[in-house]
Amino acid sequence: MQTVVFTNDIARVLDDSIGQLSPHGIFVLTDTNTSRLVWPLLKNCCASMESAGLIVIPAGDVNKNIESLSCIWAELQRTGANRHSLMVNLGGGMVTDIGGFAAATFKRGMKFINVPTTLLAAVDASVGGKTGINFGGLKNEIGAFREADSVIISTRMFATLPPEEMYSGYAEMIKHGLLDGDSAFHRLLDYDPVNHDFDRMLSLLEESVGVKRRVVAEDPFERGLRKALNLGHTAGHAFESLAMSNGAPVPHGYAVAWGLVVELVLSHMRRGFDSSLLRQLSDYVNSHYGTPDITCKDYPALIELMHHDKKNMDDLVNFTLLDAPGKIVIDCTAPDSEIEVALDIFRDLMHM
Amino acid sequence: MQTVVFTNDIARVLDDSIGQLSPHGIFVLTDTNTSRLVWPLLKNCCASMESAGLIVIPAGDVNKNIESLSCIWAELQRTGANRHSLMVNLGGGMVTDIGGFAAATFKRGMKFINVPTTLLAAVDASVGGKTGINFGGLKNEIGAFREADSVIISTRMFATLPPEEMYSGYAEMIKHGLLDGDSAFHRLLDYDPVNHDFDRMLSLLEESVGVKRRVVAEDPFERGLRKALNLGHTAGHAFESLAMSNGAPVPHGYAVAWGLVVELVLSHMRRGFDSSLLRQLSDYVNSHYGTPDITCKDYPALIELMHHDKKNMDDLVNFTLLDAPGKIVIDCTAPDSEIEVALDIFRDLMHM
Repeated sequence: MQTVVFTNDIARVLDDSIGQLSPHGIFVLTDTNTSRLVWPLLKNCCASMESAGLIVIPAGDVNKNIESLSCIWAELQRTGANRHSLMVNLGGGMVTDIGGFAAATFKRGMKFINVPTTLLAAVDASVGGKTGINFGGLKNEIGAFREADSVIISTRMFATLPPEEMYSGYAEMIKHGLLDGDSAFHRLLDYDPVNHDFDRMLSLLEESVGVKRRVVAEDPFERGLRKALNLGHTAGHAFESLAMSNGAPVPHGYAVAWGLVVELVLSHMRRGFDSSLLRQLSDYVNSHYGTPDITCKDYPALIELMHHDKKNMDDLVNFTLLDAPGKIVIDCTAPDSEIEVALDIFRDLMHM
Repeated sequence: MQTVVFTNDIARVLDDSIGQLSPHGIFVLTDTNTSRLVWPLLKNCCASMESAGLIVIPAGDVNKNIESLSCIWAELQRTGANRHSLMVNLGGGMVTDIGGFAAATFKRGMKFINVPTTLLAAVDASVGGKTGINFGGLKNEIGAFREADSVIISTRMFATLPPEEMYSGYAEMIKHGLLDGDSAFHRLLDYDPVNHDFDRMLSLLEESVGVKRRVVAEDPFERGLRKALNLGHTAGHAFESLAMSNGAPVPHGYAVAWGLVVELVLSHMRRGFDSSLLRQLSDYVNSHYGTPDITCKDYPALIELMHHDKKNMDDLVNFTLLDAPGKIVIDCTAPDSEIEVALDIFRDLMHM
């Protein structure tokens, strides 16, 4: 199982982790943001980073593409990386996704460590072995299952993140809370992530990543239980893709927060999920995430996008639903007509 | 462990194999040669092929590149393939390498079956899980370890192959014989692959693929023993790359045959490999494969190419050598000066 370290002494942990791997050459992948904001700090405090080669790709999910991937491969090749070299992915989910895939495929696989610099990457992308790029207009269409050799998570990395980024990551934590059970769910709704209490957040994060790791350990290749982690994402990805194609992109976590509400509506309709818990969630989401810019005219486009999801097997859209917090039901399907009803109720709950 | 079927009733076996996988959609990958020469035969005799979508890429190792890979991904996406779909790679090693990598990475992995149409692909590329593409002028620089769900091998596929293609594949069989032991090695030197005795060849092939499978099963990710399969390839790849860069490419197996002689010379020098067995091999190679177009002026370029090998860890070139047939020594290194001496002796043995 991969090592995940929660620490607020990242320099020591990174040096130790690299020492244990004794790599032949170290390469740090960053994007244009993290190379400016985070890399200088790390370089100055980690002895192991002194000799590292820096690879910088343009920031933004739109650059998580085959061109950036080719640039990383070419740079590794040019600077003599081999399969015993180490890549350190320093950035958000975009960097850990594409960096993980580049490392998984360069000379059929070199080692890599993820150091997430956003809450979203810490709680989601950096852990669990899903790597990849967008392709042909679809997100994460190409990739591999390959876990980082280790993941090093420090909440101090998030000190300068804007509130929007904190909420975006927190939506995935709420998802994990819903998968875990009542008390974890309520612990999360009782906290506001922009409070920047580093120690409280490190403890909530350790609990949250633990939920994901237990699921991934049971089903690394998404044959069954891992689909639990898809909660909120079938509808969420549709919100995200629609916003993107309308030229007004929304943060991933915001789309997931809305998707969670839609899918708990479906859980209520089909599985009897408790309506007062549903309302507690929709209130939290409404007050911290606002509402998506949709009307009923967008339903056909949203539902069409849901049909594109990787996890679908048949003509029906596949959802992960809940009987209650912690009571997970994977491989639920719903006819399009019922998804429309759920979207109506979602808009009611969100006072849209 | 992956299923490898040796058969001369390919239609029935392919239909059975596909039936067991019950895929959601079937896609056949071929190149411009196999789509013309082999695909029509298969399409007409296999019920499972009737509904298959055909993807054709340009033939030749030079097209085992990122552009062809993108075309395959785009075509899978356009025609609605999902991770429960099946890809059938029908072709030589170029098709099984790139098709396996495309399947391993499309939506993070779909199923695939290899149906090799060349002896070389049957004995080498189609079995063992190495997939990939060339990149930045280096062979197989990008890829993944991923085994086909099954491999179906029929020697009748090779009925129309030119002698050059048969010898090219046979070099890998000789390599496997050397790794196996004295009797396997001599059985191979006693046969001429252009005799086209389908049943004899099927039996030699089953024995030969068995050697590779035993090695791969013990070390799927090439951390140790799998390097045994590299016998002949450190020098072989250098011959192949040099010929390519001189604009006069040679078949892979010819380069391997010459590489085997060079590396048995090194085995003789460093490990006491028997000189009369070395001479038997060099006579067989000389009479069936001829000689590479090199002089002592090419030594620096050849040695520089050997230093680029993926398996190298240090500044010394890594070889797999033999104490005797079946007595394998991985991770041998040799200084450049000794490689030059081995190349001199190689040229003597080959009467160059």
